[in-house]
Amino acid sequence: MSGNTYGKIFRITTWGESHGGAVGVVVDGCPSNIEISEEDIQKELDRRKPGQNHIQTARQESDTVNILSGIVDGKTLGTPISLLVWNKDTKGKDYNELRTKFRPSHADYTYFKKYGIRDISGGGRSSARETVARVAAGAIAKKILKELYQVEIIAYVKQVFDIVANINLNKVRGKDIERNIVRCPDPKAAKKMEKLIVSTKKKGDTVGGIIGCVIKGCLPGLGEPVFDRFEAELSKSIMSIPSTKGFEIGSGFGCVYMLGSEHNDSFYSKKNKIHTKTNNSGGVQGGITNGEDIYFRVAFKPVATIFSEQKTVTISGENTVLKMEGRHDPCVLPRAVPIVESMAALVTLDFYLMGQKKKTSL
Amino acid sequence: MSGNTYGKIFRITTWGESHGGAVGVVVDGCPSNIEISEEDIQKELDRRKPGQNHIQTARQESDTVNILSGIVDGKTLGTPISLLVWNKDTKGKDYNELRTKFRPSHADYTYFKKYGIRDISGGGRSSARETVARVAAGAIAKKILKELYQVEIIAYVKQVFDIVANINLNKVRGKDIERNIVRCPDPKAAKKMEKLIVSTKKKGDTVGGIIGCVIKGCLPGLGEPVFDRFEAELSKSIMSIPSTKGFEIGSGFGCVYMLGSEHNDSFYSKKNKIHTKTNNSGGVQGGITNGEDIYFRVAFKPVATIFSEQKTVTISGENTVLKMEGRHDPCVLPRAVPIVESMAALVTLDFYLMGQKKKTSL
Amino acid sequence: MSGNTYGKIFRITTWGESHGGAVGVVVDGCPSNIEISEEDIQKELDRRKPGQNHIQTARQESDTVNILSGIVDGKTLGTPISLLVWNKDTKGKDYNELRTKFRPSHADYTYFKKYGIRDISGGGRSSARETVARVAAGAIAKKILKELYQVEIIAYVKQVFDIVANINLNKVRGKDIERNIVRCPDPKAAKKMEKLIVSTKKKGDTVGGIIGCVIKGCLPGLGEPVFDRFEAELSKSIMSIPSTKGFEIGSGFGCVYMLGSEHNDSFYSKKNKIHTKTNNSGGVQGGITNGEDIYFRVAFKPVATIFSEQKTVTISGENTVLKMEGRHDPCVLPRAVPIVESMAALVTLDFYLMGQKKKTSL
Amino acid sequence: MSGNTYGKIFRITTWGESHGGAVGVVVDGCPSNIEISEEDIQKELDRRKPGQNHIQTARQESDTVNILSGIVDGKTLGTPISLLVWNKDTKGKDYNELRTKFRPSHADYTYFKKYGIRDISGGGRSSARETVARVAAGAIAKKILKELYQVEIIAYVKQVFDIVANINLNKVRGKDIERNIVRCPDPKAAKKMEKLIVSTKKKGDTVGGIIGCVIKGCLPGLGEPVFDRFEAELSKSIMSIPSTKGFEIGSGFGCVYMLGSEHNDSFYSKKNKIHTKTNNSGGVQGGITNGEDIYFRVAFKPVATIFSEQKTVTISGENTVLKMEGRHDPCVLPRAVPIVESMAALVTLDFYLMGQKKKTSL
Repeated sequence: MSGNTYGKIFRITTWGESHGGAVGVVVDGCPSNIEISEEDIQKELDRRKPGQNHIQTARQESDTVNILSGIVDGKTLGTPISLLVWNKDTKGKDYNELRTKFRPSHADYTYFKKYGIRDISGGGRSSARETVARVAAGAIAKKILKELYQVEIIAYVKQVFDIVANINLNKVRGKDIERNIVRCPDPKAAKKMEKLIVSTKKKGDTVGGIIGCVIKGCLPGLGEPVFDRFEAELSKSIMSIPSTKGFEIGSGFGCVYMLGSEHNDSFYSKKNKIHTKTNNSGGVQGGITNGEDIYFRVAFKPVATIFSEQKTVTISGENTVLKMEGRHDPCVLPRAVPIVESMAALVTLDFYLMGQKKKTSL
Repeated sequence: MSGNTYGKIFRITTWGESHGGAVGVVVDGCPSNIEISEEDIQKELDRRKPGQNHIQTARQESDTVNILSGIVDGKTLGTPISLLVWNKDTKGKDYNELRTKFRPSHADYTYFKKYGIRDISGGGRSSARETVARVAAGAIAKKILKELYQVEIIAYVKQVFDIVANINLNKVRGKDIERNIVRCPDPKAAKKMEKLIVSTKKKGDTVGGIIGCVIKGCLPGLGEPVFDRFEAELSKSIMSIPSTKGFEIGSGFGCVYMLGSEHNDSFYSKKNKIHTKTNNSGGVQGGITNGEDIYFRVAFKPVATIFSEQKTVTISGENTVLKMEGRHDPCVLPRAVPIVESMAALVTLDFYLMGQKKKTSL
Repeated sequence: MSGNTYGKIFRITTWGESHGGAVGVVVDGCPSNIEISEEDIQKELDRRKPGQNHIQTARQESDTVNILSGIVDGKTLGTPISLLVWNKDTKGKDYNELRTKFRPSHADYTYFKKYGIRDISGGGRSSARETVARVAAGAIAKKILKELYQVEIIAYVKQVFDIVANINLNKVRGKDIERNIVRCPDPKAAKKMEKLIVSTKKKGDTVGGIIGCVIKGCLPGLGEPVFDRFEAELSKSIMSIPSTKGFEIGSGFGCVYMLGSEHNDSFYSKKNKIHTKTNNSGGVQGGITNGEDIYFRVAFKPVATIFSEQKTVTISGENTVLKMEGRHDPCVLPRAVPIVESMAALVTLDFYLMGQKKKTSL
Repeated sequence: MSGNTYGKIFRITTWGESHGGAVGVVVDGCPSNIEISEEDIQKELDRRKPGQNHIQTARQESDTVNILSGIVDGKTLGTPISLLVWNKDTKGKDYNELRTKFRPSHADYTYFKKYGIRDISGGGRSSARETVARVAAGAIAKKILKELYQVEIIAYVKQVFDIVANINLNKVRGKDIERNIVRCPDPKAAKKMEKLIVSTKKKGDTVGGIIGCVIKGCLPGLGEPVFDRFEAELSKSIMSIPSTKGFEIGSGFGCVYMLGSEHNDSFYSKKNKIHTKTNNSGGVQGGITNGEDIYFRVAFKPVATIFSEQKTVTISGENTVLKMEGRHDPCVLPRAVPIVESMAALVTLDFYLMGQKKKTSL
């Protein structure tokens, strides 16, 4: 039932199979008169594209964005913005065995049960290639947030397997993330993570981890109780990213080990501005932003495509084994960083566009 | 922007302030010709209502449901079902100090920033009293799921502070949950939890914990990629419950400590049915159910209402202190169990009603 | 599929069967800090209520509104506003024959085919009694439009059967409508219409007619191309009123007898404001308001409940005859005037709340 | 606010400016395993494309459809279908004068007031060129309706200026429409219409008219009261087509000249099927289809682009005159026929996909 649209005011609709002709997105509800260039979008796509370095899949895609509508002379018209990226490096032959077998922990079986048909080559729509469209739309959202509202969104790799980075959330800057190929702002941890990813890849195995993200500079008052709370929408948007298994905001699962008297964030006033001393709330109270940094974490499972032999069943229900070949990431986290930022940007901008209304009515 | 409606086909709209005249819900899109009685709804409201026992708030509400439309002679008409619960035990005087002060980690400040006005008494709409409406609607969803689709949803208290219950998910039954006032199916842990809650209450403090939930008997094929994945919608619905800080499904945050070769769920076929050997996926793959049990966990923070003195600010921005009085739960988890079940039921039923369409088109 | 909600930002959900306990509406998305009293709503319900005079149904309902949530101390909180009207004068016995027979041109047959069940007494949800809820919500929308945006909406009876009123749209005022029981601002035509309605009623027959409506004072820039054009949404809202058969805006069906050179509305500038000389566009161009008066017309069919014998079929498919008794309006138009105004107000306010966003982004 | 998406289950999102790179549509929610070829879509685009004959605009576009996603090996996957048509014959120079002047009865002024920017060349998004996308999506809807549900939709030109065709709705067939370039199934009237259009074009003027449409073979039970009635949604979809000024269903505005006793459609039973003797209802009762033919009519205004001198204002508010050049249709009706069919198909299919759910629950 039409699950390919996200957002209420700033609304994106994505399309495209992994090995089809192209992938793309239509962005509806973008404010008019905003300067958006292909470069604004391309620089984010370049962070997500495959084949950037030796810890990523070998698939080669330039992922060049084409703006087909909604922008004239570099400015948005207020009409739908259609963005398209042609697929180029599609290798059907790696997928022959998959015509008859379901890959474990992939979406082969569930898509087949749901639709009665599936696009074998490249995993079709269930491939993370669809996130190209999210990042393209997210690039526009990020630019508007930064320029119109002074909001910045920074995601980073916090943990890979058992290697945990040491990060000071108050000091982390966007450019720190891009200093290494793991996208972890703790250089020592980054080195260890890279090494672990390489050794895991050699064994034909995969690893997961945790991405952290902070949204800085948000006004108080965003979020629509009771169901469309800021953290509820954020959670949905993040849990819609392929391979995610968990979401937590502020103190997260750690809150269970704190008493109310420890967990509560005291208010204080300084220079006519109200702040909280601690930020266990993670920037949201009662589903509405309070003006503090919004920080959250996401768990990504190890990629399902491994290269050792696995037990599975055929499309006709017989037990069998499968040994995959092909090109895949041993760890999705470095490329998932701009995807997490994009989803957070889409949610935040949507609430900004909704929230303005409320303020004008006071 | 209209955040009080949830669902696409089975669609609920809730209303009502904590100390207003009443709280209620309109359920639109309920299938016709279904038998629904007031008792079906009341038995779930009774699980959520305040004042059930000594570890809960002393507020006394019978929370009696009134069916105002949509059901005639015990059967649904297919028209909107309007349910109403009158508020009775509302004590305004406990809230006088709150006219000028914001309670830490409550929604007082954010509601004021968003709306420029707030309902002081009882916290208005930000109070968890609004969940009466969710449980009333959830009772209908649970009944339809059970009778039409043989789906059962069981939530339980998994952890309070540092006390972790030992639970076999494959064996837990609905009635096991109701055997003690903590709603924890491990009797030994339940005793300890009760003791801890009582001692915490005596100190005027509060504790949080983890609720686990399993959805049993779901067909494969539910969920709408790419944004409206089963786990994404589930996550949103759960994170819209007051006091939640985290959501995880299947292996959850634990997935980061597993290799792909350990995490993958092998398929096997037995008696013409396809199953997975392990269930790290938690019953969803690629955003679509695979027919295995769906299990997830939710973190609840310690209740923000504590009775020791706290630092805060006044509505005009001056630093001050606040010492609260009144009636509050020292631990929300036992009463939150039916709320978690209700949200899971609303999401699952909505996908069932959407999913049928796809199957007819094959 | 949940057809009981209208609007995107100012969003109403209505409920209630004609002979059930009550009818009501939940208004979500109303701006906060707006003064709304029961009287604001009651005065509009009084215009719609049955039994006002001798040309209406004899059903006696005070239609007293109860505000159950969303308003405290006379001001909106920004939370859902729940309005309820108890049903009082319900007479089941008039409906016994209808258990087995379908009334011609009523919704008995179609509801039965759709839902497999129907509320016999009073026509259930297909009765125009559901419009109580529309008028209650519309009263709030009208007040906000008038006080915040200086927009006025005036509907009136333009034609009953072959009696056409002579009305100068530029001069008609709200109070002119209420000067007679037909709600036609041409006193001579009103007299003839009243006479015709009375004589038709005596014969047990019914008549239809045309309601005209003008929306005065709208800003340019409202409407969301390409599908959610101002006139498209307006058309949907109006055609959702029971008994409507046609909608036209501006020149309407009359446009076919004009050449482009006659139909085009020339622009001219006067005192720094841009206007059109003629207004065949009816205040909308390209789906967006241009600042001129928006005027439209609606055709209402003669009421289906007549008191002569009619051919029909039974629920089991046998040919039969039916002779109805009961209390019904011989002509719905006078009571439909506030309903048309309400729907126009809901649409206009919704666009105002959407439209503000666009302006802030310029 | 995101007005470029239509439908709830079968959901289309259109994009593209008239003189931009391309126009297109994303179709989400299409059932899987349906055979759809480029030819299925192309044949409908060919009916809409410009330059088909001497009574149309001279703009030359092949309007060749490209299927970019959602269909593999000729079958739908259940994933979004992305369709794209490149723009080729775009002539910017005709629009130079329009940089500073608003065309009367066009959307130049309103787009400028709404967005603060507009795409001068070709009218941008306000041009009827956007309907390419509607017809492409409508072609898929029409095919599914015909093959899965045996529903046929036939639109035709009923009236041009004062020339009214004589049409027997029960006998009209799809191929009759295509027998002449006016798309009027009454050959005599068609000849006169063609002659009138040609002579009007010579004078640099334009004419409007009425398109009729019939939906044959619809099941009873479609439509979602109270707001999403079949005729309400249909009305919105039709009134969203550029240049429409009125919509009527069944007896339409003619209903006002009938008494209830004349207007009511008696039921009768024949061979175990229930029918109505007359069809003033136009196939809908209480907002739900009753199984009879659904017939409706639409008024199209004369095209706003005329070639005589007109009074208007400049962008800076000065009175001026404008004399347009360029390529335009003297009468849009022949090319609007497939557009009306497309919108009717989109609405009908959407209700079919919703309606199935209700039936399974009985």
